[in-house]
Amino acid sequence: MLHRVIVAIGRNGYERVAPPLAEFEDELVGRLKSARAQDLLRVVDPISQRTLALRPDITAQAGRIAATRMAHRPRPLRLAYGGPILKLKTTQLRPERELIQAGAELIGSDSVTAAIEVLGVAIEALETAGVTGITVDLTLPDLIETLAAGPMPLTPARLERVRERLDAKDVGALAALDGQDYLPLVAAAGPIDRAVARLRLLDGVAPLAERLDAVERIAAAFAGRVGLTLDPTERHGFEYQSWIGFSLFADGLSGEIGRGGSYTILHADGREEPAMGFSLYIDPLVDAGLGQEPSRRVFVPAGSDPAAAAALRAEGWTTIAALGESDDPAAANCAFILRGTTPEPLQPSS
Amino acid sequence: MLHRVIVAIGRNGYERVAPPLAEFEDELVGRLKSARAQDLLRVVDPISQRTLALRPDITAQAGRIAATRMAHRPRPLRLAYGGPILKLKTTQLRPERELIQAGAELIGSDSVTAAIEVLGVAIEALETAGVTGITVDLTLPDLIETLAAGPMPLTPARLERVRERLDAKDVGALAALDGQDYLPLVAAAGPIDRAVARLRLLDGVAPLAERLDAVERIAAAFAGRVGLTLDPTERHGFEYQSWIGFSLFADGLSGEIGRGGSYTILHADGREEPAMGFSLYIDPLVDAGLGQEPSRRVFVPAGSDPAAAAALRAEGWTTIAALGESDDPAAANCAFILRGTTPEPLQPSS
Repeated sequence: MLHRVIVAIGRNGYERVAPPLAEFEDELVGRLKSARAQDLLRVVDPISQRTLALRPDITAQAGRIAATRMAHRPRPLRLAYGGPILKLKTTQLRPERELIQAGAELIGSDSVTAAIEVLGVAIEALETAGVTGITVDLTLPDLIETLAAGPMPLTPARLERVRERLDAKDVGALAALDGQDYLPLVAAAGPIDRAVARLRLLDGVAPLAERLDAVERIAAAFAGRVGLTLDPTERHGFEYQSWIGFSLFADGLSGEIGRGGSYTILHADGREEPAMGFSLYIDPLVDAGLGQEPSRRVFVPAGSDPAAAAALRAEGWTTIAALGESDDPAAANCAFILRGTTPEPLQPSS
Repeated sequence: MLHRVIVAIGRNGYERVAPPLAEFEDELVGRLKSARAQDLLRVVDPISQRTLALRPDITAQAGRIAATRMAHRPRPLRLAYGGPILKLKTTQLRPERELIQAGAELIGSDSVTAAIEVLGVAIEALETAGVTGITVDLTLPDLIETLAAGPMPLTPARLERVRERLDAKDVGALAALDGQDYLPLVAAAGPIDRAVARLRLLDGVAPLAERLDAVERIAAAFAGRVGLTLDPTERHGFEYQSWIGFSLFADGLSGEIGRGGSYTILHADGREEPAMGFSLYIDPLVDAGLGQEPSRRVFVPAGSDPAAAAALRAEGWTTIAALGESDDPAAANCAFILRGTTPEPLQPSS
């Protein structure tokens, strides 16, 4: 399943990188704003006496590769990755400590075109994995800060309180807080056409209009292919995203199956670089039994020609060799048996 | 590369298992004789306050699955695995702490037929990965103990000293030790036909004759396909193997690329179960650039039909989308550009 997703991402020009599972902690918690030391499983390396940390996420590692080893490479730089991550804390929905993450990062741009590319690659990878009924929830992570610093001014202290009320979707408290300017943002959450139409009513708020134009371009690119919603104030889990963030869901799969958005990579010289990316969680797809192709299993009796069995494997058959005369094709779950060079159907015993 | 190897193993009826990267230490250092606590990278889990260990090997984990979760499954049980392992100590040849291991275990038999199957799967997986010029070095790990307990008797104290001299291939010391019975074993190491012929001269030593018959059957199964040698006393790294062990090498690849052999799985009730398996090391194959297929890269100008690009990806093309008018197909390493629905060759600028 991971292979299938990585191949789909790679066909969009994303080059595979393979960051290490364990890194020196100071290198893992560096560059990108996302990595938090308290989320790491740490181990003291008895040889170097330095602290190693197990990665809880591959995005930050890919960002570091873009900012160091691949800093000289032309932009846009497209990187893909996939492999295990280790979580210190688990959730009720996902009690496993170890998860498989795949993803892609487009380094050098956070434009609307970049957002459409990245979201398109994520959707295509999920479709290739057999996922259907995909829904994309868009959010505008830094919208409140942008509005508060401009057309809908808030002092830092009031901004903090307005944010808390928005996170809680607490309309009453927001009004009591004299934050009624922001009330339409709560009411707007929902299917994308309705949400955008409601937000357009906040007439003459320039940064908002620009974001809505972007959201409409994104929505138009995927209309009819996936479901789209907008919650303009949702920021949970998007703490390090800039203007756009998205979560991916699908019919029959519990919880979020991916997320992404725009962000900023910090270079060692202080330079900031725009980027856009996504991560997919592979475990829910595997748990749902997606992408399993039934194998054609043929039992190979003792004394068969090894070349005949090898030829069948090359055609995609799974061959089960007898180890002794008493081996049972049925116990080996085979529906076929090799006779000469031909697989013949086995009759189920009546 | 790992995917290719795992698929090749799977086509021989080996079912994929995915043991966790980190396990509670007492569970990892359990069952199988191979796992050594001092080789483990350990971390105290802050939540359970138990010690987690990162796996240095997947073989032991597969053995544990066979003895617990799959104890009730019919035998022979065929398991495949692949993924990262973490080494506390590294070698000069392989300074990386993190390596990718793939492998297969055949549980329930350690017969000559099982040995031929397992070695054949290992060779086929390497061949599928593009490895050529494969050599198999066979060894007979418990031969000395078997001979010392039977036809060529040694007291435990003398056995230990004879073993040390054999490990050092120290012929002079072996003779001085009154271990001359064992001298032919040292002299026999080499190409398999010659080695077996020399060992046959040790007339009338029953357990040896039986082993040589087995070695000849294995050699016959792979004659002309791989190089075969026998060193009957080599035991370095085969401490937990029983009657047969093997190392895999190949032209152009430095160091051992795989190993395996027969061993015993200990069940919780004290029962011992014969097994046969192998591990392959994927990193040397990747480092050698094996299995890389050149990708056909096509640049997709802004305004192209997304469906045309998607159709090319479905045919195996890699598409690189323009993010702006200024993007350069050459910088994106594309030899083709999409015109309408057709990739057209790009002329290198002169």
